[in-house]
Amino acid sequence: MLISYGIKRMNQPVDKLFIIKIGGNIMDDEEKLPSFLKDFVRIKEKKILVHGGGKIATQIGEKLGIKANYVNGRRITDEKTIDLVTMVYGGLTNKKMVAKLQALNCNAIGVTGADANLIPAKKRPVKDIDYGFVGDIDKEKLASGNVRDHWQLLLNNGLVPVVASLTHDGKGQILNTNADTIASVLAVLLSEDYYVRLVYCFEKKGVLQNVNDEKSVMHLINKTIYKNLLEDHSVAEGILPKLENAFAAIDQGVKEVIIGHADDLVQNLTAEVRGTLIK
Amino acid sequence: MLISYGIKRMNQPVDKLFIIKIGGNIMDDEEKLPSFLKDFVRIKEKKILVHGGGKIATQIGEKLGIKANYVNGRRITDEKTIDLVTMVYGGLTNKKMVAKLQALNCNAIGVTGADANLIPAKKRPVKDIDYGFVGDIDKEKLASGNVRDHWQLLLNNGLVPVVASLTHDGKGQILNTNADTIASVLAVLLSEDYYVRLVYCFEKKGVLQNVNDEKSVMHLINKTIYKNLLEDHSVAEGILPKLENAFAAIDQGVKEVIIGHADDLVQNLTAEVRGTLIK
Repeated sequence: MLISYGIKRMNQPVDKLFIIKIGGNIMDDEEKLPSFLKDFVRIKEKKILVHGGGKIATQIGEKLGIKANYVNGRRITDEKTIDLVTMVYGGLTNKKMVAKLQALNCNAIGVTGADANLIPAKKRPVKDIDYGFVGDIDKEKLASGNVRDHWQLLLNNGLVPVVASLTHDGKGQILNTNADTIASVLAVLLSEDYYVRLVYCFEKKGVLQNVNDEKSVMHLINKTIYKNLLEDHSVAEGILPKLENAFAAIDQGVKEVIIGHADDLVQNLTAEVRGTLIK
Repeated sequence: MLISYGIKRMNQPVDKLFIIKIGGNIMDDEEKLPSFLKDFVRIKEKKILVHGGGKIATQIGEKLGIKANYVNGRRITDEKTIDLVTMVYGGLTNKKMVAKLQALNCNAIGVTGADANLIPAKKRPVKDIDYGFVGDIDKEKLASGNVRDHWQLLLNNGLVPVVASLTHDGKGQILNTNADTIASVLAVLLSEDYYVRLVYCFEKKGVLQNVNDEKSVMHLINKTIYKNLLEDHSVAEGILPKLENAFAAIDQGVKEVIIGHADDLVQNLTAEVRGTLIK
């Protein structure tokens, strides 16, 4: 029998929830993805998988004659591109992953932010650049009881949301939203109801002291260390947005953030973290 | 607060449930789709929308160099084609429709049969023809408590499932399944828990006595009339599989089946049926 717990907001959150974000480096790798999914299903606690696109979207886009447009390193999402990513992230990638998780006895349900209005967003306002159909999450609407209730409904009834990095504007338009951001915003939202560990799987073992040395993983970064890193300019630039996202999440109630390699997922979910623990 | 009723199998079903199937003729029509969706959201009762693909899948397939293969009028679903329909039905068509329904304050959730294991299926066995990745619904697994619980979980908590005509084999493979069949099998399944009216929207006003005369709609077909129609060969061949599906559903507990035009949806949901009522 399925039970929706309803709302336990007045109590201390007790149930653990893992929110795990993967990127193209796992999804594009036919060997890594199955082994990652096997590790993922070993998590007995509540869990959410957030994924972006991978190279397949670009490949299909090229065949369809849709060219990737970048301005200042940011991809512009025009009308053809939003259709492309809706199709590939929301359909191909998402549903294939769901079917594979089902085969491993994990009751996955693939969603975008439009489904059950799980991630309300707004089209990014045009300032210097028009990003096109890119969505910034509408945190006010997200925090509304109704949206949280539906996340709880899924999580508290044994379902495992697999979230494609798409949101919607509530006016009928699907929007493209950064998967890292979705993962961290969901982690913040759900921290009111669960003890959340947010795990970013990426291509390095963790935050490296020396970007050329995979053994130089910094196993713990707290605020003091982070401040020093910023002052010293001593970490790779690429990792800074991830660290910024991580501390923003911590500041808003997320218990732990981990940045680590997908191969180390199992360890990174225990106390024996091999990646970088941020808290 | 969200409540999952759990199971009321011992009682008489009371809640009405409309299961509405639409095809390419609505989905491909930029004028008809919005007006159909407006009519759909006017349904206050529980509801499910089942959709197939439409021309867009063929168009995108052509651009991607995927040719449609037919054997005896049946489309063969090879590996490229199942990826194509997963992408288009499960992603593009489904999510765009969900976003549009959300804009109309309808809390739609787009699913395939893989999501939450909502429609377990088996790859069709190869006899004379290898249909490829085509799924026949596994009625035994479908009837299992767990699957029904998840349908109820969605329906009893204000969510409106929008179902793309895809299923899965439980071994990691997405399968292509006829949307009419999905609608009727779901209608049968859910008849144990709800008072189900199954509505097929198609391009004619209903079952026509004279296929060239839209005014010759047969407003009621019962078993006796059906038997006579079969003996007389007096209805268009194209409609026979729909009638067969309809009576199979009625025989298995579905209260009413309606075959009618999408434009008449609102009337066809009331007692003033403009299409053909089968009971």
